[in-house]
Parts: sequence; C-alpha cells; structure tokens
Amino acid sequence: MGPTDTELVALAERVGAACRARGWSIGTAESCTGGLVAHLITEVSGSSDYFRGGLLTYADDVKVALADVPVATLAAHGAVSAQVAVAMAEGARHRLGVDIAVAVTGIAGPGGGTEAKPVGLTYIAIADADGDDVRRHIWAFDRSGNKRASAAAALAMVMDRLAVDLP
Amino acid sequence: MGPTDTELVALAERVGAACRARGWSIGTAESCTGGLVAHLITEVSGSSDYFRGGLLTYADDVKVALADVPVATLAAHGAVSAQVAVAMAEGARHRLGVDIAVAVTGIAGPGGGTEAKPVGLTYIAIADADGDDVRRHIWAFDRSGNKRASAAAALAMVMDRLAVDLP
Repeated sequence: MGPTDTELVALAERVGAACRARGWSIGTAESCTGGLVAHLITEVSGSSDYFRGGLLTYADDVKVALADVPVATLAAHGAVSAQVAVAMAEGARHRLGVDIAVAVTGIAGPGGGTEAKPVGLTYIAIADADGDDVRRHIWAFDRSGNKRASAAAALAMVMDRLAVDLP
Repeated sequence: MGPTDTELVALAERVGAACRARGWSIGTAESCTGGLVAHLITEVSGSSDYFRGGLLTYADDVKVALADVPVATLAAHGAVSAQVAVAMAEGARHRLGVDIAVAVTGIAGPGGGTEAKPVGLTYIAIADADGDDVRRHIWAFDRSGNKRASAAAALAMVMDRLAVDLP
C-alpha cells in the first residue's frame, strides 16, 4: 500500500520545519505523482510561508512548455529518465523562483510499463543553487501506492538536502 | 472532516469517464487545494489519456507568472476572489492547451481569514471554449477538510459542465 497518510503528512511537516529553519522557499514539478507532493506540503498550516507553487507536467509537451525540459532530452532519454527529472527540477526552480525544487517522473501503472522501463520506475531530482541530485527507484505497489511511495521519497530527499549544514 | 477518500476518488472516476465520453482534455490551476484536485484526477488509471497538467499557483506572483492572472485583478479583488478564480482557469486553459480547466482559490485556514474573507471562503471557476463559470463556497471544516471539500466541489463542477450536451 505504500506509506500511510500519517507518515506522509509527518514528512511534510518535517520538510516545512526545515524550510523555515533555512529560510528557504520550495516548489515542485510533478509528473507521476500528479500533485500529491504539493498536496502534502500544503496540508501543513502556514505552508504558504515557504511553498510558492508547482508545475504539474503530465503530458510531454507540457514538460517542455511549463518546465523548460528540452525536447532533445525527452527524445534522447524518454520522459521517465534521470535527465528529464533533473531538467524538471531546474525548470521549476527557475520558473517558480524558489530556493529548492523537487521533481518526480515515473510510471505509476498499471499501464505504461515496458521491459526497459517497468511500472514503478521513478526518478526524483532536487535542484538548488548548489546543483542537482537525482535518485532512481522501482516501486512494487499499486498505482496509488506507487504515487505515495514516490511522494515520500521526494519529501525525504528534500529533507536530506535541507538538513545539510543545518546547525 | 469533509468528503472521504472513497467519495473523492469516485468523483474523479466520473470526471475521467466524462472526459473520455467527450474526448476532452482537462487541466487544473490550484491555489488553496495545493494539488489535491490533480492528485485525485491522477489516481484514476489511464488518466494520462485526458489529464495534461496543472498549475499550482500558491504565491500571488506565481499566479501572475504561471497562470497569467493580471496584476491589476489581484490588486483590485485580492487572490481569493471570483475574478482571480476565472483568470486562473482561463490561464490554465491556454497555458496547458486543454479543453476544460478548473481553478480553485480560497482560504484553507486556520490562518489567513479576515472579516470580509473568512477562513473557508473558496471560489471555483471553470473555463472552456464556451466561456467561464464561477461559484463561491464557505466551508467550515479544518484545513484538510476545507481542501477536500473544495476538491470535491471542483470535480462536481467539472461534471456539471461536461454533462451538458452529453448524449
């Protein structure tokens, strides 16, 4: 089933506290999670102090138009790739004017999988002024569970990044 | 508490079936719901056939930059207004290239309310080629419940619009 509501909101609260401690703003670029990461961040009261917005780039041409993902990157690597995840995060960071952006692209299922890119394959990227980071996962839940696992991993990755250098 | 998960996903399934019946694509522009409407739409398997993307415009300047909400409209009516809801829906329709867009702007609470614009006040707008529609609600749930009630009302409003002229 993936992480529970309680676990997900607890992670979002930690992300919020870390954003406040840093004085950083945050934004998202989401494909397979479809807005779940931002929904969780905004479950926290007062999140408008640090959450500025997000790009939900489901269709490939929307990834290009909204998040400035290069057409050549999509053509060379496919929408579900480390390269597109990083491009989405960089696009969100610039378009939203945030200190840190997190991006998720993957195959939630049950359809859409191939041998090379199975259902559950997900890339999560972070972008901030120090550069980018990207991680690859393969989840084995149902569609909803895969989305939840991706959202949890995205929030955890933000925490890891924000925790660096915190006093 | 607002609507349950089961009720919300059932609404999203009906919206998906109506989009398929019409052959229409859909997108969102969300402020107070923070991505919840899009998250629900994308809980449905195969929703990538009709959901193209969304704009999460939490900060006022992001409403301007991403959804083309006129600065003058924000200044004259405030972010939580019928005028801004309609501008967000029109902006999403054009930016996302969708047949129908739904927009939500409101005060989820617990903070941010005033006498003129209390916590729970929410405007939901629809835009399609036939024009715009906007409705006003005042919810009395907690933050999470207000978001859920807004999402349910947004999906119901899409259903109403899509059902018109259906065979």
